[in-house]
Amino acid sequence: MLNTVFSYVFSAPVWGLLGLLTAISIYFYIARQPNGTPKMAAIEHQIHSGAMAFLKKEYKVLAFFILGIFILIGWGLNLQTAFAFICGAISSIFAGLFGMMAATKGNSRTAQAAKAQGIRGALKISYFSGSVMGLSVAGLGLLGLGILYLIYGKEVSGMQYINGFAMGCSSIALFARVGGGIYTKAADVGSDLVGKVEAGIPEDDPRNPGVIADNVGDNVGDIAGMGADIYESYCGAIIASSAIAATMGQKALSALGADRMVLLQLPLFLAVIGMISSLIGVGSLHWFKKLKPSSALRATTMLAGVLFVVLSALFVGLNGISWGIFGAVISGLVVGTLIGLFAEYYTSGRPVRKIAHQSRTGAATVIISGLAVGMASTVLPVLCICVATFIAYMSAGIYGIGISAVGMLATVGVTMTVDAYGPIADNAGGIAEMSHMGPETRKITDHLDSLGNTTAAIGKGFAIGSAALTALALFVAFIQAANLERIDLINPMVVIGTLIGGCIPMLAAAMTMQSVGRAAYSIVKEVRHQFRTIKGLLQGEEGVQPNTARCVSIATSAALREMIMPGVLAISAPLITGFLLGREALGGMLLGATIVGVFLALLMSNAGGAWDNAKKYVECGRFSHKGTSQHKATVVGDTVGDPFKDTSGPALNILIKLMIIVSLVVAPILASNNWNGLF
Amino acid sequence: MLNTVFSYVFSAPVWGLLGLLTAISIYFYIARQPNGTPKMAAIEHQIHSGAMAFLKKEYKVLAFFILGIFILIGWGLNLQTAFAFICGAISSIFAGLFGMMAATKGNSRTAQAAKAQGIRGALKISYFSGSVMGLSVAGLGLLGLGILYLIYGKEVSGMQYINGFAMGCSSIALFARVGGGIYTKAADVGSDLVGKVEAGIPEDDPRNPGVIADNVGDNVGDIAGMGADIYESYCGAIIASSAIAATMGQKALSALGADRMVLLQLPLFLAVIGMISSLIGVGSLHWFKKLKPSSALRATTMLAGVLFVVLSALFVGLNGISWGIFGAVISGLVVGTLIGLFAEYYTSGRPVRKIAHQSRTGAATVIISGLAVGMASTVLPVLCICVATFIAYMSAGIYGIGISAVGMLATVGVTMTVDAYGPIADNAGGIAEMSHMGPETRKITDHLDSLGNTTAAIGKGFAIGSAALTALALFVAFIQAANLERIDLINPMVVIGTLIGGCIPMLAAAMTMQSVGRAAYSIVKEVRHQFRTIKGLLQGEEGVQPNTARCVSIATSAALREMIMPGVLAISAPLITGFLLGREALGGMLLGATIVGVFLALLMSNAGGAWDNAKKYVECGRFSHKGTSQHKATVVGDTVGDPFKDTSGPALNILIKLMIIVSLVVAPILASNNWNGLF
Repeated sequence: MLNTVFSYVFSAPVWGLLGLLTAISIYFYIARQPNGTPKMAAIEHQIHSGAMAFLKKEYKVLAFFILGIFILIGWGLNLQTAFAFICGAISSIFAGLFGMMAATKGNSRTAQAAKAQGIRGALKISYFSGSVMGLSVAGLGLLGLGILYLIYGKEVSGMQYINGFAMGCSSIALFARVGGGIYTKAADVGSDLVGKVEAGIPEDDPRNPGVIADNVGDNVGDIAGMGADIYESYCGAIIASSAIAATMGQKALSALGADRMVLLQLPLFLAVIGMISSLIGVGSLHWFKKLKPSSALRATTMLAGVLFVVLSALFVGLNGISWGIFGAVISGLVVGTLIGLFAEYYTSGRPVRKIAHQSRTGAATVIISGLAVGMASTVLPVLCICVATFIAYMSAGIYGIGISAVGMLATVGVTMTVDAYGPIADNAGGIAEMSHMGPETRKITDHLDSLGNTTAAIGKGFAIGSAALTALALFVAFIQAANLERIDLINPMVVIGTLIGGCIPMLAAAMTMQSVGRAAYSIVKEVRHQFRTIKGLLQGEEGVQPNTARCVSIATSAALREMIMPGVLAISAPLITGFLLGREALGGMLLGATIVGVFLALLMSNAGGAWDNAKKYVECGRFSHKGTSQHKATVVGDTVGDPFKDTSGPALNILIKLMIIVSLVVAPILASNNWNGLF
Repeated sequence: MLNTVFSYVFSAPVWGLLGLLTAISIYFYIARQPNGTPKMAAIEHQIHSGAMAFLKKEYKVLAFFILGIFILIGWGLNLQTAFAFICGAISSIFAGLFGMMAATKGNSRTAQAAKAQGIRGALKISYFSGSVMGLSVAGLGLLGLGILYLIYGKEVSGMQYINGFAMGCSSIALFARVGGGIYTKAADVGSDLVGKVEAGIPEDDPRNPGVIADNVGDNVGDIAGMGADIYESYCGAIIASSAIAATMGQKALSALGADRMVLLQLPLFLAVIGMISSLIGVGSLHWFKKLKPSSALRATTMLAGVLFVVLSALFVGLNGISWGIFGAVISGLVVGTLIGLFAEYYTSGRPVRKIAHQSRTGAATVIISGLAVGMASTVLPVLCICVATFIAYMSAGIYGIGISAVGMLATVGVTMTVDAYGPIADNAGGIAEMSHMGPETRKITDHLDSLGNTTAAIGKGFAIGSAALTALALFVAFIQAANLERIDLINPMVVIGTLIGGCIPMLAAAMTMQSVGRAAYSIVKEVRHQFRTIKGLLQGEEGVQPNTARCVSIATSAALREMIMPGVLAISAPLITGFLLGREALGGMLLGATIVGVFLALLMSNAGGAWDNAKKYVECGRFSHKGTSQHKATVVGDTVGDPFKDTSGPALNILIKLMIIVSLVVAPILASNNWNGLF
């Protein structure tokens, strides 16, 4: 069966195309649904065009960047890698674009379905809107990588070109995550600070000039940003595994009892199995529609997971591939789920109630206990990653580490669907509020939104877990591509490298947090200005409209301005270290960045999520309620948590992957010179 | 000249004793000074006896611990190491005790001198009170290590026993730092929350039942804790360098052109030179008394530094030792100073004003920008450590890394004096307030206190820098003692080790922050209870006294209870990792812990210092003033910063050193079995 390996490979672009076509037909299905009153259609139009305007401007900036890197790679390395880079960059852009188009259409239609058909109808619309993102991510990945494998993958030596694809995905992902993250939090924090705190009007109130920017931000940050992030891990894990297979020693190869070409193609085929399982999982919402929404969501993911395990087992068994590889697949899948559950515990379990109770002694104790929860919450996920790495390594060697990342990410079609569903439900609530659809509708969207918060927490944990495992896999691939025989901590240059590496996530986190502050402040000034100068706006006089487009445009330029530096940092730091201190120190640097980055990302994401839910816990009234000093204390926590969980934390996931991928791409140069630095 | 190396060694205990005797005579000189009114004497007595009560209880707990570890080491390893362990532990206890006895005497005498003789008199008393700590640390270190070197240092194989001394210092230091840190912040935060925030009475108001505990806390935390921390780095650096010399290869040895025995004793002799320079530096305050206080403080440190450089150069030149070693000494000294200056910039320069200005948009933005400053502030110090390591390694090989830590710490007699001066001036202010000495006196103590904040920031930077460099030196010593040929990041078990290592500082920071919260809450409850039940207390009726002893006792038991877990964690984690995963993974684990620990410690210390000064910046009135919403926002920052900079951050310094020292002590066992773990 495995002699015809190319028919398997051929299946990747075919299944990729199939997934993509499914996503597109779902998009048109969503677009055909009624989007409610003219008021709602107008709001939808504002959000949609705001989001598109942001993306358009962002892509214009990125076009120069992509062209520049294309020339650099083509000139310094080779045209094949440069071509793969372009493919990766463009496909990443499309993944974000498709997902966001569906999300901005899905918002108002979910609100309308909530009004007309109740919770089940609303769930269906929001879930399928999200599935456009999930299936696009998986589909574009399979299609793009499948074609490149067909072109370059015939020979082992061609595999190195495909690393360019990962670099394309990663660099776009970093800009999308950072830009989108800054946009969403600047608009959110900025409009809340003036609207809720200073003027005392509710969240999502149509009088607030920043409210459209806030909703646009949810789409460009949570949807497009998250999509690019996961897309990058998905492609990165596949490419890293293949790269390991391409360069692993003969001994390791024979221990797995498989041909090098088979191992090279296997990650892609596992992704195909994941796509098949995801398509069935997404479709299965129809069968589960009688269940409660939370159970239905979980059931679709679980069905896909189980299918993936069964199909992978069948595939491994029928083709006589080492069962060790199956073990690695399972370790990734199980650990991915566990990390998600831990993230859920720390961001909605007992720790959240403890933080909320600290509000009795004020904002400071809320912050202290939130940070403590964030720090403590890093331990179990990291130990999970250790266990997954250990099992994968024991059962299938270093190749197993890559495969376990693939196992974690193969069913991305359905996991990403559930991730994207959350912000759509959230936005539907915003639209319901802005277009005065009444408390019944709002209650439904709020319920879906609160489920979305849980899935978002799980999704964020999953994103970090997969980023960490992918980073480790890429790290192994880098070691082999750079032809490194050791990265020895006995060598002080390696230790120096690890310390330098640790600086990068710290600096990136500091930069992005300050960016949010600066960008939010420019929104604050604009909203204050409009409240002061537009007569009758705050009083809610008929016909008086805020200038929402101006806030959208301010947030857009601020986000694009602020995204440049972290991107430059991530790309230049490994190049400078590698050139100055050599390959071995660069290896140390990548590991240092990964360690500090993973801990910081987990800390920031989980602390942010915990503060958010502590505020909601107070708002729900069991312990205190809105407007009390306790509530105000938790609002401070929530505001600190916003850039933590939605800007800096997620940016770090991509940062570490991008740094390793840049090193992986230039590894052949370093290896050919046996480059050991200037000293 | 070097043939008579033992006469040099003999000089270590002699100079150590001399330093110690100087410290003791200064103590009696201080004790003879007038301590003011009976009211002041009474307050002094309360603080002194509260601090002694804490230490007594702490030492009782530690006695069991020391005995237990003594038996374990004696049984599992050898009696010599166990004996050295006891010596280290007891000398560390004495270092803390001496320093604190002088500090608690110095507080009221500084206040009295401020009233009677003005600022110069007050500076003199507070400086010399601090010098008791500085000279005790250096003196006890030289005396204890000098004697042990005389006993065990005659043969190279005896050096391994001396590692036990470092473990003794470290374990006491961790408990002292954690216990003292929790005590001081629990008392501070707890009494402020009820006194300043709820009841609206000023800081240090004698009606507040927590006020004595707060002052006791400054002594047990900032003085005894800081003393134990630096003492540990001082001894650790000397021992690590000797341990490297004892085990380094013949090739590295001949590259330095020196006899192994010479290199073995050299660190101790550099410390003697540092002691001579420090004694002159401390004494030189008399010559500089015409200068401004801030210049006088700086002049004494600089004089000692210059003397140390000149004397070391003379020593190296006269004895024909490689100038590379002199280069390593200088790299440590320069980088230690630089790190201190960076810490000063980030905790009192432009970043502080930026944080203060963020208070216009509330507490949340103060927290966000403070955390961003803290993160950004890690980069330059870490790069400094990289440069010091690089230069030291280039000029004197791995031995140079140890020597550069010694160079940084050799003049500890004077740098620690300046560190200890700050809290004494601070406490003098508290006593002036409590005993109503009038605004003139308070102004003088406030001025000295504000200088003390700068020196404290520099001192904290220095403590972390020296901890990091000492940790690296100990790490090198561990590698050699464990007979490791490589700690290779290509081996996934090493990578797993680094990830596990990173968990430890995260967990310890989370634990200690939560401990402060819990302990502070028990103080809050007690103070509230007293305000409610003691009639006339809040109204300030004549003769009505709060029960301050009860708050002291609550803080004491809370701190002692909470210090156990982090200590157990630090000692058990390397043992478990080493046993389960083997020597090489343990090496990775130590490095992971060091990296995450150093970044986290820098982040927490600097963010804490910056928040503190941002609050003071608002209070000084240039930008806003006390009582405004801006001020309240910065108070939140300051409260979050308290456990950051005084509990968790400093605890991490010791945590990483202790973990490496524990590994160093058990390294011979691991090496003799060539232990590579259970898997």
